[in-house]
Amino acid sequence: MKIRMLLEYDGAGFSGWQFQPGLRTIQEELEKALRCYQKALVKKAGMSADEWTLSLAGSGRTDAGVHARGQVASFLWPDELGVDLSRMRAALNGILPRDISVLELSQAALSFDARRSHHRKCYSYALAPGKRKSPLERGRCWHLPELNIAAMIQAAAYFRGTHDFSGFRDSDCCSSSTLRTVLSSEVSRSGTQLITYSIVGWGFLKQMVRIIVGTLVEVGKERLCPEEIPKILESKDRRLAGPTAPAHGLVLEWVRYEEEEI
Amino acid sequence: MKIRMLLEYDGAGFSGWQFQPGLRTIQEELEKALRCYQKALVKKAGMSADEWTLSLAGSGRTDAGVHARGQVASFLWPDELGVDLSRMRAALNGILPRDISVLELSQAALSFDARRSHHRKCYSYALAPGKRKSPLERGRCWHLPELNIAAMIQAAAYFRGTHDFSGFRDSDCCSSSTLRTVLSSEVSRSGTQLITYSIVGWGFLKQMVRIIVGTLVEVGKERLCPEEIPKILESKDRRLAGPTAPAHGLVLEWVRYEEEEI
Repeated sequence: MKIRMLLEYDGAGFSGWQFQPGLRTIQEELEKALRCYQKALVKKAGMSADEWTLSLAGSGRTDAGVHARGQVASFLWPDELGVDLSRMRAALNGILPRDISVLELSQAALSFDARRSHHRKCYSYALAPGKRKSPLERGRCWHLPELNIAAMIQAAAYFRGTHDFSGFRDSDCCSSSTLRTVLSSEVSRSGTQLITYSIVGWGFLKQMVRIIVGTLVEVGKERLCPEEIPKILESKDRRLAGPTAPAHGLVLEWVRYEEEEI
Repeated sequence: MKIRMLLEYDGAGFSGWQFQPGLRTIQEELEKALRCYQKALVKKAGMSADEWTLSLAGSGRTDAGVHARGQVASFLWPDELGVDLSRMRAALNGILPRDISVLELSQAALSFDARRSHHRKCYSYALAPGKRKSPLERGRCWHLPELNIAAMIQAAAYFRGTHDFSGFRDSDCCSSSTLRTVLSSEVSRSGTQLITYSIVGWGFLKQMVRIIVGTLVEVGKERLCPEEIPKILESKDRRLAGPTAPAHGLVLEWVRYEEEEI
């Protein structure tokens, strides 16, 4: 049986999503919790343990420090163990540490794979301009001097559409294709203090969203004009784009799968 | 010279606003920071220290654990020391711990007193129904089972207007008058996970907002009908109202002064 998980996590205490030996990762904590629950069931049913391996697929790897309000993961669950999704959710949330939560569990088609099934996702990034430290948003936004928001709104629109994002990826990104389609790219004010950038697309290159944010901040600081964005995209030159924005302002908001939109 | 402060704080680490010997309070941290800045200026100007006392008035006392996104305070600053508000703000934020921030400083009329000048204020309360723990909102919302939101929306409206809130105050509240006017009282959904209650009024009794929230949650759990709210108000009986909601879900959002609205 294939199970789909909706997850929220505070990225601050993790070295990102993906398993890395010796580091605390979201994937590892989730797999550990699932194995622990599985063992309890196996014992209860009097079966022999270690009969099943467990491997969790996430919609994508969030970087170290990046948060998620709507990450999706999937895993295969042995039919022999039966399943009560509401109990499983309660058990997992009991086992998991405070910085990860399973929001929902549902049964998915056997063909569903959170990583491989075609999906689009939305990231948001919170900026606190005016050098105002915010105790209630600390660790959740990038503190900056005053920014020219109107210019940033204009600049954000240039990222929409299909572009070669070679200049907007981390140097150790190993994607073979660098073409990506951005469906939405918006800067807006939220509340009195914060500015939110949000971007929707069919997947992104490594650190692409954070480099876009860093470039928009250069526009906000009036070191770049909005009209320069298309040239920077065309140049495919990482040095012309802005710095990589810090991880802690970024949140994976949601993931939508095509096959689920019937 | 009278100075007005706009403040944000994370209430988790404080025993509330008001100075209490041996406890960490917001008032104390602010007065300490102001005295420290004052001493530095006094020293620089070659004056003799301890010439001025400093006393800070807040718009109201927030309870232990309650947060603020827009608390207002005022204090008298000696004219002889001169004032550069932008430098003062930077200095105070440098001295203050991470959980308090001075968002704005401005000069006010000498007659202005954050506590005594007539003002209305808005509190918000965040509820997370469905027993979903939220890592990104932890320490900021009250986790609850599923709630009947429609009933809560209906019940919230009954608190509007001028009522005797005797049944909705802490047993050690010592206000002589228990009549209060509520200008707005609304339950709404915010985002996918949270429900927000917000209330605007000309001041509140001790723990009044948290007892209103506790009562609305009883309605959400279908242990009370919305129509019972007027009877509970009329009874003036604390035992008929709901429990006091935990402090950590409550935020003082803003304070508006009449004399500033010209």
